[in-house]
Amino acid sequence: MALKARVLYDFSSENPGEISIAENELVTLFSEEELEGWLEGENSRGEAGLFPASYVEIIRDQITSSTNNNGFSSPKTQKPTHTSYTSPDTHSQRGLGAGSGGSGGGSFHTSQGSDDDWDDDWDDTSPATEVPQGLGSSPPLYPVTSSLPARRDSSQQHQQQAKSSATVGRNLNRFSTFVKSGGEAFLLGEASAFVKDGDKICVVMGKHGPEWQEDPYPFTCTIDDPTKQTKFKGMKSYMSYGLTPTHTNVQVNRRYKHFDWLYARLVERFPVISVPHLPEKQATGRFEEDFISKRRKGLIWWMNHMTSHPVLARCDVFQHFLTCGADEKAWKQGKRKAERDELVGANFFLTISTPDVPLDLQEVESKIEGFKTFTKKMDENSVVVNTTINEFARKQAAGFKKEYQKVGQSFKLLAQAFELDQQAYSVGLNKAIADTGEAYEAIGEYFAEQPRQDLDPISDLLDLYRGHLANFPDIIHVQKGALTKVKDCPKQEGELHDRCNIISCATLAEIQHFHRTRVRDFRSQMQHHLRQQIGFFQKITAKLEDTLQRYDDDQ
Amino acid sequence: MALKARVLYDFSSENPGEISIAENELVTLFSEEELEGWLEGENSRGEAGLFPASYVEIIRDQITSSTNNNGFSSPKTQKPTHTSYTSPDTHSQRGLGAGSGGSGGGSFHTSQGSDDDWDDDWDDTSPATEVPQGLGSSPPLYPVTSSLPARRDSSQQHQQQAKSSATVGRNLNRFSTFVKSGGEAFLLGEASAFVKDGDKICVVMGKHGPEWQEDPYPFTCTIDDPTKQTKFKGMKSYMSYGLTPTHTNVQVNRRYKHFDWLYARLVERFPVISVPHLPEKQATGRFEEDFISKRRKGLIWWMNHMTSHPVLARCDVFQHFLTCGADEKAWKQGKRKAERDELVGANFFLTISTPDVPLDLQEVESKIEGFKTFTKKMDENSVVVNTTINEFARKQAAGFKKEYQKVGQSFKLLAQAFELDQQAYSVGLNKAIADTGEAYEAIGEYFAEQPRQDLDPISDLLDLYRGHLANFPDIIHVQKGALTKVKDCPKQEGELHDRCNIISCATLAEIQHFHRTRVRDFRSQMQHHLRQQIGFFQKITAKLEDTLQRYDDDQ
Repeated sequence: MALKARVLYDFSSENPGEISIAENELVTLFSEEELEGWLEGENSRGEAGLFPASYVEIIRDQITSSTNNNGFSSPKTQKPTHTSYTSPDTHSQRGLGAGSGGSGGGSFHTSQGSDDDWDDDWDDTSPATEVPQGLGSSPPLYPVTSSLPARRDSSQQHQQQAKSSATVGRNLNRFSTFVKSGGEAFLLGEASAFVKDGDKICVVMGKHGPEWQEDPYPFTCTIDDPTKQTKFKGMKSYMSYGLTPTHTNVQVNRRYKHFDWLYARLVERFPVISVPHLPEKQATGRFEEDFISKRRKGLIWWMNHMTSHPVLARCDVFQHFLTCGADEKAWKQGKRKAERDELVGANFFLTISTPDVPLDLQEVESKIEGFKTFTKKMDENSVVVNTTINEFARKQAAGFKKEYQKVGQSFKLLAQAFELDQQAYSVGLNKAIADTGEAYEAIGEYFAEQPRQDLDPISDLLDLYRGHLANFPDIIHVQKGALTKVKDCPKQEGELHDRCNIISCATLAEIQHFHRTRVRDFRSQMQHHLRQQIGFFQKITAKLEDTLQRYDDDQ
Repeated sequence: MALKARVLYDFSSENPGEISIAENELVTLFSEEELEGWLEGENSRGEAGLFPASYVEIIRDQITSSTNNNGFSSPKTQKPTHTSYTSPDTHSQRGLGAGSGGSGGGSFHTSQGSDDDWDDDWDDTSPATEVPQGLGSSPPLYPVTSSLPARRDSSQQHQQQAKSSATVGRNLNRFSTFVKSGGEAFLLGEASAFVKDGDKICVVMGKHGPEWQEDPYPFTCTIDDPTKQTKFKGMKSYMSYGLTPTHTNVQVNRRYKHFDWLYARLVERFPVISVPHLPEKQATGRFEEDFISKRRKGLIWWMNHMTSHPVLARCDVFQHFLTCGADEKAWKQGKRKAERDELVGANFFLTISTPDVPLDLQEVESKIEGFKTFTKKMDENSVVVNTTINEFARKQAAGFKKEYQKVGQSFKLLAQAFELDQQAYSVGLNKAIADTGEAYEAIGEYFAEQPRQDLDPISDLLDLYRGHLANFPDIIHVQKGALTKVKDCPKQEGELHDRCNIISCATLAEIQHFHRTRVRDFRSQMQHHLRQQIGFFQKITAKLEDTLQRYDDDQ
């Protein structure tokens, strides 16, 4: 008996190999197995091809628990299907959007834990269980070679769209970020929600254009070395990070899956804000020192970008994450509240207040174009820098170290030969030459250890920024979608223009924030790098000066 | 008609492939062509094989000018046969005496220009015309794989031997350094010459054993950058070095061939003194800057070892070389005098006065054995050091430079991407990052240029010392030959013992001198190396500090 599935939402094929399916239609599946979020099957018109797995529900009469629309059964009753998602390793081969679209965020990834059972351990005990989701993994804006987008739980937007009546031409592409983000819905006036004063987000006109109003109560947050925690009598273990925000100065303990959950909320909540990607999830060796240290550094960078973002830093869900203590009930309450937040997607734009004078949309368009060029170039060149410094680090750990140690060993050999001459006046020299050999061996070690201090941090920073760069095509797409819509419908200028202005203000404010943060981060990181390098060469110099001394000591 | 040659001296074959030939015998040559100083032919007993070319005289009835016993015709009447002699490039593969015997002196070589016509230009206009000769290129003492010794103009010693009557067992091996050096002749009491007081060479008993009496009037000698000279209306050109000894402070001009001539005189004159090898002769590119600079550095080292040797520094021929001005007649007079010097070879030992108490020959033997082990080890390990530092220099000029420049270029690319953002607050950073890129490119250059300052000098020093190390097997052999002879003939104890004591004193004094010079040279060279390295890393540090400044300048 062929496997059947019921179509939950309309989907119109956009690429060769895809087929269109309509709500409530029954489709025949060729296989239950998904390929990056797609299923293969035949629609009722006899067309065979691919359609998004999340748009259908597989019919299983014999199974009591039905699969959810992500193809996942409830974690309570059944082990979820694990789809591993790893960003490609071939970063160096591809520029931004030149192959894999918005999913390239260096070693940072996007994921969303949607399990309702907060206390289960599946993300700590199963290998790399993730549902790639959010803006970061949505379809590319720039021409791409792959036609397989990642899955997305877009039920909310689709339900919204279903109940709205289209007055202007609606974008039929359900994968369009403009549609998914809620940008289209907002522009068409379909968004509506109650916005409290505390939820208001101000875009002000700064010296360099629109910008997010500064956080009047800026704070930072430290992340301590994680400790290994166990539960169920040691059967399960996980790493717990101590977070201490400066505005409360109270430490809270969080696990990676908490970060992961928060990340998913933020991506859903803020359509045109570049939420920093979390450091890479790792299937094995989660308790290994190197990985723990690397993840902690990644989380520190992530936290830095969270707390320094005027909008993200102040939002409820992040504050809940930072301040809620060990009280289980309070935590769950905040968690539920965040998950039921109405001001997500399209409604986010309702919270934005803009400067009095609307922007010149042509100027906006040109700015956005310029930024698009910028991000593309920055991504391309970041790849080169990253590849180069990683190679440089490798060379220092291998070749440079080897060369200095070979020289050191050869000097020691010379000293050994000289030691065969036992005359008194020779002894001091022999010792000094042997010491020189040892100094060179030590310098070899210095070279091998140095990259960790001054190259790895640049690499980490570039990874974080490549995450942002991967977010921006979607952000730009939302603004462009709005602008195009406004251009297409000159009649409804008034409200449409206002709403397009809101989207544009938010987008430009986010771009401005990106630039400010970038200049701040790269300045401080390059300074750190140079200071470290200076210290490194001074250490070598000191070692050599000490060695030189030996030639006088024993004369 | 087969080519014939008349045998000038007895030669008894010592290795497979060689044949014995007797004085006045006629041999048939298979070819007129020499292979590293050997000819192939058949003796009167019908044995075919190799014999030394210098032991025979080719019979040419039809040619008016006869070849000399080196197979060379007079340079006046005929272009000489050019035998190129290059030391093997595979130093790293071979230890002292483990393959090519005493001929391995790094890039220093031994040669002797024996042409009587001092003013001809053949050594400047012909490619690498040299007759390898002297102690350095005599047959190996340690087991060797090659059976082809270099040629040697040994007519003088052989003529001496021919007229002497043997009273103790004579060594039949004409290639034995003991025989060639005149050591045997001296030991057997066959040396006789008038020794003026000024020719006396004193060995005194020092703290560490016998040593050469110190030069009461020590001096040094500078060598200026050579200038290119031409003669015959520019048809011939050569390099002229300005030499200024400190004890006269008058500059004299010398050409490489003058050094070459002097070297030959010294080798002949001093059987147990390690005459420093001259820097390599080069066939092509003699006027190229790199070669000129390298040869000059080599000559400076050579001069340093000449002037710091108590015996060599004071000897007549060297003084003539250092002090004779542009007066052609005075020069030729001194030259003839040196070439007619009676106190060469065996007679050299007549000039030596020893400490009152004779040495314990058993102790001498053990010291010599120890030194032999030392030289072998030093040569082996010098090869490793030389190979390693040359490789290190190559890596710095290639790999290290490339890596730093690649990093520099990638930083410049990052700056280029950042420059697409034209906001005012970004400009300073962009410039600073570009400057950082340039700093790294400059550091790459520093790495490439540095070896010339601190590795090449060590390599030059090792080359010079490998020349000495190549001399010592022969020097040791003379002493050992004498010792063996004394042991074999207990009857003639008195005089034989005295003469053996003289040889031993001279040998140990020379070894002592070698050690003193070695400790002095390696101490100062290692110090120089370390100072240069310190300066190098300080230069890098300064560059980076300057670059770091840029990040503050434009903030």
